[in-house]
Amino acid sequence: MTRARKVDLITNGAGRPVPVEVNGKRTRPFAGVEVARPEGRHASPPIRSCADYPDDGNKLLPDLETALERCGLRDGMTISTHHHFRNGDLVAVPLFDAAARMGVKNLMWFPSAAFPCHEPLIKHLDSGVLHHIEGSLNGPLGDYCSAGKMSGLGVLRSHGGRFQAIQDGEVHIDIAVIAAPAADSFGNANALTGPAAFGSLGFALADSLWADRVIIVTDNLVPFPCVPWQIQGNHVDHVVQMDRIGDPALIISGTTQITRSPDRLLIAEMVARFIRDAGIMKNGFSFQAGAGGTALAFAVYLKELMKEAGVKARFIRGGSTKYLVEMLEQGLTDYILDGQTFDLEGVRSMRDNPRHVATSPLTSYNYHGKGNFASQVDAVVLGATEVDVSFNANVVSHSDGRVLHGIGGWQNCLFSKCTILAVPSFRDRLPVIRDRVTTLTGPGELIDVVVTERGIAINPKRQDLLDAIKGSSLPIRPIDEIDAEVRKLCGGAPAPAKLSDEPVAVIKWVDGTVLDTAWRVA
Amino acid sequence: MTRARKVDLITNGAGRPVPVEVNGKRTRPFAGVEVARPEGRHASPPIRSCADYPDDGNKLLPDLETALERCGLRDGMTISTHHHFRNGDLVAVPLFDAAARMGVKNLMWFPSAAFPCHEPLIKHLDSGVLHHIEGSLNGPLGDYCSAGKMSGLGVLRSHGGRFQAIQDGEVHIDIAVIAAPAADSFGNANALTGPAAFGSLGFALADSLWADRVIIVTDNLVPFPCVPWQIQGNHVDHVVQMDRIGDPALIISGTTQITRSPDRLLIAEMVARFIRDAGIMKNGFSFQAGAGGTALAFAVYLKELMKEAGVKARFIRGGSTKYLVEMLEQGLTDYILDGQTFDLEGVRSMRDNPRHVATSPLTSYNYHGKGNFASQVDAVVLGATEVDVSFNANVVSHSDGRVLHGIGGWQNCLFSKCTILAVPSFRDRLPVIRDRVTTLTGPGELIDVVVTERGIAINPKRQDLLDAIKGSSLPIRPIDEIDAEVRKLCGGAPAPAKLSDEPVAVIKWVDGTVLDTAWRVA
Repeated sequence: MTRARKVDLITNGAGRPVPVEVNGKRTRPFAGVEVARPEGRHASPPIRSCADYPDDGNKLLPDLETALERCGLRDGMTISTHHHFRNGDLVAVPLFDAAARMGVKNLMWFPSAAFPCHEPLIKHLDSGVLHHIEGSLNGPLGDYCSAGKMSGLGVLRSHGGRFQAIQDGEVHIDIAVIAAPAADSFGNANALTGPAAFGSLGFALADSLWADRVIIVTDNLVPFPCVPWQIQGNHVDHVVQMDRIGDPALIISGTTQITRSPDRLLIAEMVARFIRDAGIMKNGFSFQAGAGGTALAFAVYLKELMKEAGVKARFIRGGSTKYLVEMLEQGLTDYILDGQTFDLEGVRSMRDNPRHVATSPLTSYNYHGKGNFASQVDAVVLGATEVDVSFNANVVSHSDGRVLHGIGGWQNCLFSKCTILAVPSFRDRLPVIRDRVTTLTGPGELIDVVVTERGIAINPKRQDLLDAIKGSSLPIRPIDEIDAEVRKLCGGAPAPAKLSDEPVAVIKWVDGTVLDTAWRVA
Repeated sequence: MTRARKVDLITNGAGRPVPVEVNGKRTRPFAGVEVARPEGRHASPPIRSCADYPDDGNKLLPDLETALERCGLRDGMTISTHHHFRNGDLVAVPLFDAAARMGVKNLMWFPSAAFPCHEPLIKHLDSGVLHHIEGSLNGPLGDYCSAGKMSGLGVLRSHGGRFQAIQDGEVHIDIAVIAAPAADSFGNANALTGPAAFGSLGFALADSLWADRVIIVTDNLVPFPCVPWQIQGNHVDHVVQMDRIGDPALIISGTTQITRSPDRLLIAEMVARFIRDAGIMKNGFSFQAGAGGTALAFAVYLKELMKEAGVKARFIRGGSTKYLVEMLEQGLTDYILDGQTFDLEGVRSMRDNPRHVATSPLTSYNYHGKGNFASQVDAVVLGATEVDVSFNANVVSHSDGRVLHGIGGWQNCLFSKCTILAVPSFRDRLPVIRDRVTTLTGPGELIDVVVTERGIAINPKRQDLLDAIKGSSLPIRPIDEIDAEVRKLCGGAPAPAKLSDEPVAVIKWVDGTVLDTAWRVA
């Protein structure tokens, strides 16, 4: 079944048509990277009283269903979860199975991201237990959404954008369900110990602060106090024990293998050399790279360059892996400021090393705060599915228009002092550089450098970087030149995606405005 | 000058007459210990945008005056500060001197507490720069208020009550000024290092979360990131450097000397034995005691009893001192959960030992949360200026009616499973036990045990404690009997305070209702 939609569209400040209304709410179209200003005040949860909570602090309930009942679960509510377990999550499916048994309908699921392991939820979307999902849609649920099968529109937000939306009251969470690898019966919780430990619970922070009701689910109940309290029991209504909340083997999801592709190793090395040659790599500098294969290889190359030059960073932003932990332990950085750990070495380090500091979307990414960490990072290395000749980039859809990836912290990181996209010039014979990205996720004015195996393109807006890199032996080239070369190689320009005129999802900018639309794939 | 006030009074649930309006706002009279239920939602600060803050995170301004100007300081605003420096604070006086130079009037000062070092602010109260103070008033400012010289009414709140008042929007802070022993230029701040280090910045947490504008003042600027961030730069507008923000010698204020009075040592020992003999001292138990001389002696006695019996606590609540730190380091407790450190050993331990955990009024005391730590503590040992035969207690005024002390965490701690007042039976020939307390600060139903050098009185409501202590050699006596004995010894019942019928301050209960009134001292 597909659900045809008639919606009014408006052309936004990036020239993209976007719906004027999404899931019953009026939207604000993207106006420019730093143009829109917020109005009003933060959302605020109801005032509670200790008189209504147990004096001995024991908030344990026998099971999830009882907790949902005590939270007053009913039709149309918004239920949030977090994605720290990635593809090893064992909570969201039983959660909505319980909701289905309880007979409720039209729920909105508001995860920080959905993964292939959540495919069993499709039956609840089909049956109407779930009305729609707002959150990153990796894999099968993205496919489902792209096919136009979801009753509401998907809404993709960055990590910072999700925090912003909750903080500003654009999304009101009725019940937050937070799976915690360690918790006490009062609801203090962290992700540092226990069989499903993954490091930081940061993605659930906003949920704990603003949801009307908060349920902690744990497979590792510890005596009060559970220290440190990444989630504070003072915000928690109920605690439930389950046998297993996450599969440690799948939490990692195979993202932390260094690439073995010669092209990608070349890209990684060029990125590291660029950061050195442009003068960014100096004492006290900072950088961030993700956990993809190219990013990991970059970190290893940069580490060698830093050792060679005797340079020490002030901080490295994680997603952390054993490679970053090594740099911390070898004195190549003062701190790791870490939003999520991608392997068990990262978890160990965050647990035991006070210089490996857990961060949250509030500290790092929220655009509606008094500044954040992202804009203070000297260089960030990111990926993309597509980049166009104006440096605009796409990270959520493939070139056929299917939305298969989340935004993560990607948009938020674009505010770094030097934003570098490390991308192969083509994938599966399809050029990655093109005239126009299928789905706009990042405006070109924030993207400074594109590094491919065929050369490095610097955004002409960044004359300072063009000047700084003069004299380097790196292959600096205009982006059009790389584009033309790749096009020739691939046998012409890529065919545009076959898309309908029916929106299936929108892509939010960090300030809550609508940056672009994803269309039903014809 | 005294300022006569005509105000309407109402008799509250404790039988005390209280003003129906305080400083222009309608009040809710105390209805009972756990009777009132809050309505509505949390206060919420304005939504900000990173677009209005420096991308490089540098929020430094040259001086306090510039920062106040940038915050839009104007007549009638509420300015908050914290009292972590106690009598060594070097910020509040220059702050209001700056405000005076800027020509503003009718400010409300909202400190977490005022100390004798703040006496110079009296000139600003006289001149109208300051309209009134809401906060604990230790010493000269308490005297000033008691004499009826303040333009508005004093409002005394517990640590938890102050958090509650900010959270619930009863007090709106326009500008919070937070003095921090360590801070970076983004505004991340802590109190663990630097010349004025005092441990935890917990009392300023609510201010940072809800004030419209937040200024960090520091004498120890460190490179970003200042870790840990007890105050998050994401809530901070401006950062100002000063030469000195606090006098380390006066931060301690002489409170951390063990008593040498034989009577008080006897009381301390009896308290420790009571906790043992009543069966409270067992593996996994918890307790809290303050930093007064008797409380310190109690901790030392209890430590010996614990060692003798081979008992280990799960947690001890600070205010911490070297005595508690020793217990942590000797394995007599798993954790110290600490709201404030009272000596440098406490600071060192909190900085270096992950089992010495900084807490805040949110975690520990806020009554309008989903539970708090205070009610989970097995036994708490507190002081009082007066106790009556119904176990009601006073901690804010002397028997002459002058309000000279703050509430601190005292009211919040009353929710402990066993609340013990350790008091001498008389002071300066005035009985401490009396028919009726001058100012009601803690309702008797929450006070379980009164320990004096003449015996131990157990609240008849606690039959379980009376049963538990049977067989102990401790002198358990009815409170009336102790009262009669002391009265005889002191030559009769104490004369009631000579008070006018003009309110000068109100005492709030933990839920924001008005528990009692302080009257102008005739």
